[in-house]
Amino acid sequence: MLDFQPEVAQRQQAGSTSGTLLKQYQETRNYSIQICEGLSDEDLQAQSMADASPLKWHLAHTTWAFETFLLKTYLVEYEAYDPLYEYLFNSYYNAIGEQYPRPQRGLITRPSRETVYAYRRYVDNAMEQLITNIDTQSMDDHEACTDLLRLMINHEQQHQELMLTDFKHLLSFNPAYPKYRDVENLSVVEDNQMLAFEGGLVNIGHQDETFYFDNEGPRHAYFLNPYKLASRLVTNGEYLNFVESGGYQEPSFWLSEAWQKIKQTGNTQPLYWQQIDGKWFEYTLNGLIPLNHDCPVKHVNYFEATAFANWKDKRLPTEQEWEASVSSNDLRLKQTFNQLWQWTSSSYNAFPGFKPKTGAVGEYNGKFMVNQYVLRGGSIATPPGHIRASYRNFFYPDASWQFTGIRLAETI
Amino acid sequence: MLDFQPEVAQRQQAGSTSGTLLKQYQETRNYSIQICEGLSDEDLQAQSMADASPLKWHLAHTTWAFETFLLKTYLVEYEAYDPLYEYLFNSYYNAIGEQYPRPQRGLITRPSRETVYAYRRYVDNAMEQLITNIDTQSMDDHEACTDLLRLMINHEQQHQELMLTDFKHLLSFNPAYPKYRDVENLSVVEDNQMLAFEGGLVNIGHQDETFYFDNEGPRHAYFLNPYKLASRLVTNGEYLNFVESGGYQEPSFWLSEAWQKIKQTGNTQPLYWQQIDGKWFEYTLNGLIPLNHDCPVKHVNYFEATAFANWKDKRLPTEQEWEASVSSNDLRLKQTFNQLWQWTSSSYNAFPGFKPKTGAVGEYNGKFMVNQYVLRGGSIATPPGHIRASYRNFFYPDASWQFTGIRLAETI
Amino acid sequence: MLDFQPEVAQRQQAGSTSGTLLKQYQETRNYSIQICEGLSDEDLQAQSMADASPLKWHLAHTTWAFETFLLKTYLVEYEAYDPLYEYLFNSYYNAIGEQYPRPQRGLITRPSRETVYAYRRYVDNAMEQLITNIDTQSMDDHEACTDLLRLMINHEQQHQELMLTDFKHLLSFNPAYPKYRDVENLSVVEDNQMLAFEGGLVNIGHQDETFYFDNEGPRHAYFLNPYKLASRLVTNGEYLNFVESGGYQEPSFWLSEAWQKIKQTGNTQPLYWQQIDGKWFEYTLNGLIPLNHDCPVKHVNYFEATAFANWKDKRLPTEQEWEASVSSNDLRLKQTFNQLWQWTSSSYNAFPGFKPKTGAVGEYNGKFMVNQYVLRGGSIATPPGHIRASYRNFFYPDASWQFTGIRLAETI
Amino acid sequence: MLDFQPEVAQRQQAGSTSGTLLKQYQETRNYSIQICEGLSDEDLQAQSMADASPLKWHLAHTTWAFETFLLKTYLVEYEAYDPLYEYLFNSYYNAIGEQYPRPQRGLITRPSRETVYAYRRYVDNAMEQLITNIDTQSMDDHEACTDLLRLMINHEQQHQELMLTDFKHLLSFNPAYPKYRDVENLSVVEDNQMLAFEGGLVNIGHQDETFYFDNEGPRHAYFLNPYKLASRLVTNGEYLNFVESGGYQEPSFWLSEAWQKIKQTGNTQPLYWQQIDGKWFEYTLNGLIPLNHDCPVKHVNYFEATAFANWKDKRLPTEQEWEASVSSNDLRLKQTFNQLWQWTSSSYNAFPGFKPKTGAVGEYNGKFMVNQYVLRGGSIATPPGHIRASYRNFFYPDASWQFTGIRLAETI
Repeated sequence: MLDFQPEVAQRQQAGSTSGTLLKQYQETRNYSIQICEGLSDEDLQAQSMADASPLKWHLAHTTWAFETFLLKTYLVEYEAYDPLYEYLFNSYYNAIGEQYPRPQRGLITRPSRETVYAYRRYVDNAMEQLITNIDTQSMDDHEACTDLLRLMINHEQQHQELMLTDFKHLLSFNPAYPKYRDVENLSVVEDNQMLAFEGGLVNIGHQDETFYFDNEGPRHAYFLNPYKLASRLVTNGEYLNFVESGGYQEPSFWLSEAWQKIKQTGNTQPLYWQQIDGKWFEYTLNGLIPLNHDCPVKHVNYFEATAFANWKDKRLPTEQEWEASVSSNDLRLKQTFNQLWQWTSSSYNAFPGFKPKTGAVGEYNGKFMVNQYVLRGGSIATPPGHIRASYRNFFYPDASWQFTGIRLAETI
Repeated sequence: MLDFQPEVAQRQQAGSTSGTLLKQYQETRNYSIQICEGLSDEDLQAQSMADASPLKWHLAHTTWAFETFLLKTYLVEYEAYDPLYEYLFNSYYNAIGEQYPRPQRGLITRPSRETVYAYRRYVDNAMEQLITNIDTQSMDDHEACTDLLRLMINHEQQHQELMLTDFKHLLSFNPAYPKYRDVENLSVVEDNQMLAFEGGLVNIGHQDETFYFDNEGPRHAYFLNPYKLASRLVTNGEYLNFVESGGYQEPSFWLSEAWQKIKQTGNTQPLYWQQIDGKWFEYTLNGLIPLNHDCPVKHVNYFEATAFANWKDKRLPTEQEWEASVSSNDLRLKQTFNQLWQWTSSSYNAFPGFKPKTGAVGEYNGKFMVNQYVLRGGSIATPPGHIRASYRNFFYPDASWQFTGIRLAETI
Repeated sequence: MLDFQPEVAQRQQAGSTSGTLLKQYQETRNYSIQICEGLSDEDLQAQSMADASPLKWHLAHTTWAFETFLLKTYLVEYEAYDPLYEYLFNSYYNAIGEQYPRPQRGLITRPSRETVYAYRRYVDNAMEQLITNIDTQSMDDHEACTDLLRLMINHEQQHQELMLTDFKHLLSFNPAYPKYRDVENLSVVEDNQMLAFEGGLVNIGHQDETFYFDNEGPRHAYFLNPYKLASRLVTNGEYLNFVESGGYQEPSFWLSEAWQKIKQTGNTQPLYWQQIDGKWFEYTLNGLIPLNHDCPVKHVNYFEATAFANWKDKRLPTEQEWEASVSSNDLRLKQTFNQLWQWTSSSYNAFPGFKPKTGAVGEYNGKFMVNQYVLRGGSIATPPGHIRASYRNFFYPDASWQFTGIRLAETI
Repeated sequence: MLDFQPEVAQRQQAGSTSGTLLKQYQETRNYSIQICEGLSDEDLQAQSMADASPLKWHLAHTTWAFETFLLKTYLVEYEAYDPLYEYLFNSYYNAIGEQYPRPQRGLITRPSRETVYAYRRYVDNAMEQLITNIDTQSMDDHEACTDLLRLMINHEQQHQELMLTDFKHLLSFNPAYPKYRDVENLSVVEDNQMLAFEGGLVNIGHQDETFYFDNEGPRHAYFLNPYKLASRLVTNGEYLNFVESGGYQEPSFWLSEAWQKIKQTGNTQPLYWQQIDGKWFEYTLNGLIPLNHDCPVKHVNYFEATAFANWKDKRLPTEQEWEASVSSNDLRLKQTFNQLWQWTSSSYNAFPGFKPKTGAVGEYNGKFMVNQYVLRGGSIATPPGHIRASYRNFFYPDASWQFTGIRLAETI
């Protein structure tokens, strides 16, 4: 867990009074800046692939979100910092307008980091004014405004995780294996057991009044057959056995689409693994380090997770199995939260009765519900209070640059 | 429904004695030849895209399947027709060996159609010998052999549907709009209602002793919230309203991935639709015909089906909703079977407890369980007895060349 | 040299009276049909890549050329065989109209071969009528018509060469290594010498009244430094030395662009070469045969020819060096014509004073004058009288599917 | 002409004594830094396409060149600044070793700009030591060393031009149209004439003892037919007529390959032109400015230059015509040097007798001699003394991001 992460998350649900919200806002905003401390302007500029963004863009986009969804509507006489930013830092909200092409974000050298920091301060001042007076708003505005404020705080927290994974991906292109900080430290759990759960009709989805994303609900009944879940995550050592026993050369373990990718790319190991003079290393934000066999295997994609499970004659859990078990607070389950996102076999889809919100905010989650797979549990890069049992993350099955791992499951 | 389709399907479950099996075998094999009657050797040669195959290849591959899975194992002293065919006509079975590259199937001009027909007769002779003596086999062999025989008969039936859709796709590249035969005739149902179903704990998956594919089981409990299903399929007229009201220009109806495709391709209407001098036409196997507003809309992909549903403020059914309702034999439900494959919102995934078979046959279904979506109900191109309520077809969400349509659903 | 090639070429310049022209026309037309004898309809249908065309397309396109450039203008009341063909069989003449997309030519299964043959007969009848009466035309028409007729006869001859190279390329995708006919037989010349030529101010370009393409003129002065030319072509054995000594692994021999292609494709030998159990074979129209070390190396592209020359510390000749030497009829020069097209180092560009003709015919050559390289001398697939010292063929530097070889040169 | 350009070029040929060389070295090195003054670290980091490089990379690579070709060989006990730089900043010299992938140069955020500046100072110190003692070297070393030093000074000057064109290309992706400096100012010449030259046997290539690149020689005889050259460059106004009269919609003006690109990309105007509310603007390093009809048209590629010439019923000059005329110092020829690079119709190829040098330096020019076209005359971005009549620049025919223009020619 990142030792410089804010306390905000644990406390963020504690209240929604002006004072509490302001503190949550400020801590979240500060944390984004803290992530960039010690990094150069160049570090913040570059973009390693279309799926990742420059750190500077993350800093600007999260600011744009507060400006766009809150200040422009709810702060009287608010004047946009720069009218061009509406286009430049819109990620994917078609209802707001056109977006600057995603693969070219790394080409925007101006505004500079310095100007983006000034933009953040400008918006922070306005937001602080808005939040301070939030209790004086009309009932309707107050509720809408508070909801959006909490959504945008959580939105920036999501980007904080992406800042770390995108930046790791960028640094990995540097043959000097640069170190960021000592942040990538996972817990070690030696013993593993397949824990039995009886299933039955369970409730899935968010259940209390605390914050959650729309895709976590509505809460609904779901029938589960009996199943087993591994008590801990798959380790580097276990995955290395798969690699060294020829797992990447044997099609029977792989989904058809995965096997085609392997033949195209020639991949024979996880992203960030590297064999030097016969020894295995792993590139991390801590630098290039010898592969620790006891640590959970990281940066495996859905295809790899599935192939490994097949090799072990196991399978991935469904998201409902995962949620039901983890919600049960069974103490034998280890490494549930804030270690690695755990792939489930569940395609990212709407829960029964799900409806996206109207307006631009409705584009937050719903329109991505195709061809992606659900991950649960958060990672070392997830702000700690940001995660919960019902939290649904989602990525394409070939995505490896997130902190993703494997928990095995089994049908009884 | 194709008027030249065989009677086999209706009767195929009637028995598994040698005589019955032989009749099913022969009728199925004849039907493939019948599909190609009146077509030129050139018609059978060409391949329109990597996802489609030449008719000649279908004729050879289905024959290869009987040879590979049955004759080579169960017919004493069987000699392969041509050793090269094992490579040339293997579709995707890695356990059998390497495969000739799929996108190049249209480049194999030799064997000619004539030779492929001779190959079919050669295998037919051997198969008839095997089937005639099937009752004299040991108990174990008899069961394995009968199972494989029925699987391979159903396999050829699946290819019979693909022969029609692949050939339609090929002909569509010809600016003369050639006619195949008068086969593409759908029923018209005027009135539409949203029929309510109460849901609850239902059983999903195949349930009796008749033939089914492994992906249709195991039968399992599934909990459904109350829902509504449209009594008939969406019509051309309804879909045209969507098109003409600017549906393809408005991002809010579309999944994010779909919208990106639209911007790339510039698509503004379904595959095979065409506007000539302000009038709408549709290319069909019957030739180019004016768009019939009352007929079900065909050749919409998952993205289009979803966008249309969003535009109507409805949604697609889940595969469980579809199966539960159709299995109920509610007579108010129209156009359930053998009209158009109906997209469901369900990602194609394993049912609880599903395990692929061991060996090459295990590659039949399981390894495709990612990124595809389930379709139900069969189409006018599906051999009639080939379909059932538990049948799961699956295609990628951007696939349009199958006979696919839309049934709307709604959460109550 | 193909033993079934017509005598027409040798005699085609003999006269331009109606009778002579008719004979030339008929012999040329018959030869195209002769090339396809013994081939199946499937063989004529398939297209192996965008740069190659189906045999059936060649048969139709050459017919379209007579119809378009002659019959529609000069034959009174001529009625097109099928109005759609103007679009379907136009290769690249924008002045005529839109063209059916080149990479999809293999998808046009209708018209069938049979219909294309009927189309040929229909046009032949009309052409015979036109030619028979050609001497009754007005002076202007007579000259224009005769010029176009001779151009279109030569055009069909060019396609006859492409028919063989395109068909070889198609067959090469068949793992059975099918044989076409015994046509690919090159002369063997053992001894090689570097022959000195003194250069000076020479005349380049076509010089007499016989037929030539516009790109062969105008004839013009060109100054040449002294140089040497190899008396014969590079052999398979010599090229094999280059291959086996690591030529494809050493960047210093290769142009930068070529080296990038090698790294992308992993190529380590010429197209159609194959090593089986340590022995070298070559796929030819005669089938798969052991590599004959004494025969000229075939199917090397410009990049390979240049790399080989660099390895030998030699260079390719310029097209002016080639033409000046070959025109000199120096008997020590071997394998000059009708063996293999010989790459020159000359980019395909306009000769001084070159002007394309006005109208669609002007698109014949001029618009391709960029990024291609000049080849001289014709090949075994070139109709014999079709070639001459001033003849300029041209292909992209990565093109390997023509019958292309290497003659070395050297600066004195 | 850039007003902050150094005086070095004019004087660089004046002598090769230690003092003169040192001054040339220092002025050239300072000028690279001067180009970057006022730019942010982010501006120096980003890379807009594979063909362009980050400014920071240019600063490091030119330094690497002095280190690699001079210091490592000629400075006793020289220790490389960082061993990794040999890989990181090698552009394309295979004889030196592997190169960091070109399209990823913008991903190298470390070394930072600050470190690259320190690297420059480190190498400058060592180079100053080497140059100061250059007269004490052995005769052989002195000559080799002086040659390499002058080559590397000219090499850095070439990169100075690329720094401006690459940076302009990068800024052009920014919707704010940022200004660099007031540097992009071309001379205006109103009257245009087609000047006749008689041609004949001329000498082409570098002729005196001053510095030149290997590709400019050897000097050789070349025969020219009489021709005409435009006295000045084509203007924006003239090119706009071409654009507005439908030039980009009419295939007959374009080379076949160019026309295919136009259909793919939909281009209808030169790079950096933009129509806003019916008015034409041009993006320049001075910012976005109204199109000046009297200024020479910039950033046209070879395809566009050729199409425009065809439209005017003219042609591009050959490089020999250009060099012969400009060398004649005919005072009626305007805008010959340091305005815009002028496309010639000459493919970039070896002059008769050209041999690349042995060793890594031989990769400087020779290996690019395919598919590129020669440009003459230098541009506003070329250090003034860097240019001469025999100077051969070369780019691919679709390259538009250099300062390229059009001078028309005509056959008499």
